[in-house]
Amino acid sequence: MPYSPEQLSDHQEIADVLHAYCRAIDDNRPDDVVELFTDTCAYDYGGELGTFSTKEHAYRFFRAGTDKIYRRSAHYLSNIEITFTGQDQAEARSYVNAWHEFHDAIPNAWIFARYTDQLVRTDAGWRIAQRRVDTMGHEAWPREVIHMDRNVLAPRPTTSVRK
Amino acid sequence: MPYSPEQLSDHQEIADVLHAYCRAIDDNRPDDVVELFTDTCAYDYGGELGTFSTKEHAYRFFRAGTDKIYRRSAHYLSNIEITFTGQDQAEARSYVNAWHEFHDAIPNAWIFARYTDQLVRTDAGWRIAQRRVDTMGHEAWPREVIHMDRNVLAPRPTTSVRK
Amino acid sequence: MPYSPEQLSDHQEIADVLHAYCRAIDDNRPDDVVELFTDTCAYDYGGELGTFSTKEHAYRFFRAGTDKIYRRSAHYLSNIEITFTGQDQAEARSYVNAWHEFHDAIPNAWIFARYTDQLVRTDAGWRIAQRRVDTMGHEAWPREVIHMDRNVLAPRPTTSVRK
Repeated sequence: MPYSPEQLSDHQEIADVLHAYCRAIDDNRPDDVVELFTDTCAYDYGGELGTFSTKEHAYRFFRAGTDKIYRRSAHYLSNIEITFTGQDQAEARSYVNAWHEFHDAIPNAWIFARYTDQLVRTDAGWRIAQRRVDTMGHEAWPREVIHMDRNVLAPRPTTSVRK
Repeated sequence: MPYSPEQLSDHQEIADVLHAYCRAIDDNRPDDVVELFTDTCAYDYGGELGTFSTKEHAYRFFRAGTDKIYRRSAHYLSNIEITFTGQDQAEARSYVNAWHEFHDAIPNAWIFARYTDQLVRTDAGWRIAQRRVDTMGHEAWPREVIHMDRNVLAPRPTTSVRK
Repeated sequence: MPYSPEQLSDHQEIADVLHAYCRAIDDNRPDDVVELFTDTCAYDYGGELGTFSTKEHAYRFFRAGTDKIYRRSAHYLSNIEITFTGQDQAEARSYVNAWHEFHDAIPNAWIFARYTDQLVRTDAGWRIAQRRVDTMGHEAWPREVIHMDRNVLAPRPTTSVRK
């Protein structure tokens, strides 16, 4: 179904929010990260990173991550697919290829994940009201990774957790 | 030359098809992959993966790949360039950064490739009528890789095949 | 603020220029790379790659890089954010995930960088009038890398240069 000019504008504005998130993370500006989400956003970062929905928790979470754990990072965002679920709400799916260098003397690592975001139009522009992170894979990630479910056509012993 | 609003809508719809391909591959939903191509699509995946143009072959190809060979994958699509070659047809070039984890106990691998797609507008939306895959490089790919030709300014002994 | 249809068209045309750059680099067509910049473009590639602003230097720079140093490369461009700074000028920020294979027998390497570009509309279309490259990180890069400044919340001994 064709996109209207208004939807194409919204599409671009939502992409801008997703990109601003990556840039603020990689700049180590955690407080600017939080501003891209609504005050009551439900965050689900999966696994031990957990779920939370208060702004205080979000500040703590991003400040700890971008500043104390990661020495450098690069979050490549692509594969943006947006579905408009209302005049002022949308669902965005995207892929993130996130490289990290740590303060600890451990190897650099990649995480290969997807964001599934529910966005709402606010007076300040589109904001993320719900984010779920699903992990497709990783290279050298130093902590437990819970992978997303993958359709399995043939029965086979498989674990969804892998160190 | 400026894009019309209709072309911008088509551009986005074509990007949606390219992204849906990646997501269906990485979800291990091979039959959904095939639905993104026309019934008579000419597939050219290069090298030993070969060329084929029947839907039966396409089902076999994608079912074998996503389910039996790859345990996990992440296909990052970017650098989408679209040329409209008619009212209802377009050529899309894109880059894919494809990470794979195998069922076999071999190292994970990346393939760095390009898609050159001919798309047509159908009643069900834009579909891929021809796809060619050209490989720019790889990391640890376990099988023979045939690289795309690269413009060589200075004469130099070079092989286009590299294990 | 919503994008007008004209701005969405400009956005796409600017993205086309950024993608054409990557494809020309990876094709080893350095002279086509230079055509995407204005004749007086100010290039700032950072560190030992340096700054330059003559077309002659640009030809030398790209001919040496794509042909003599790199055997193969793949430049994945994403996270494009564009701000229109005038009717005929714009600033584009983007991320590049650039994989390289060398002619020398050294390991392949990734550079994780950002482009900050000033573009102008010319009779031939949008062209890059100023480019700055900031490096977020790397894997196995064989030469000195100067990393971009990163906001540091807590005081900590940190070096911005890392081999």
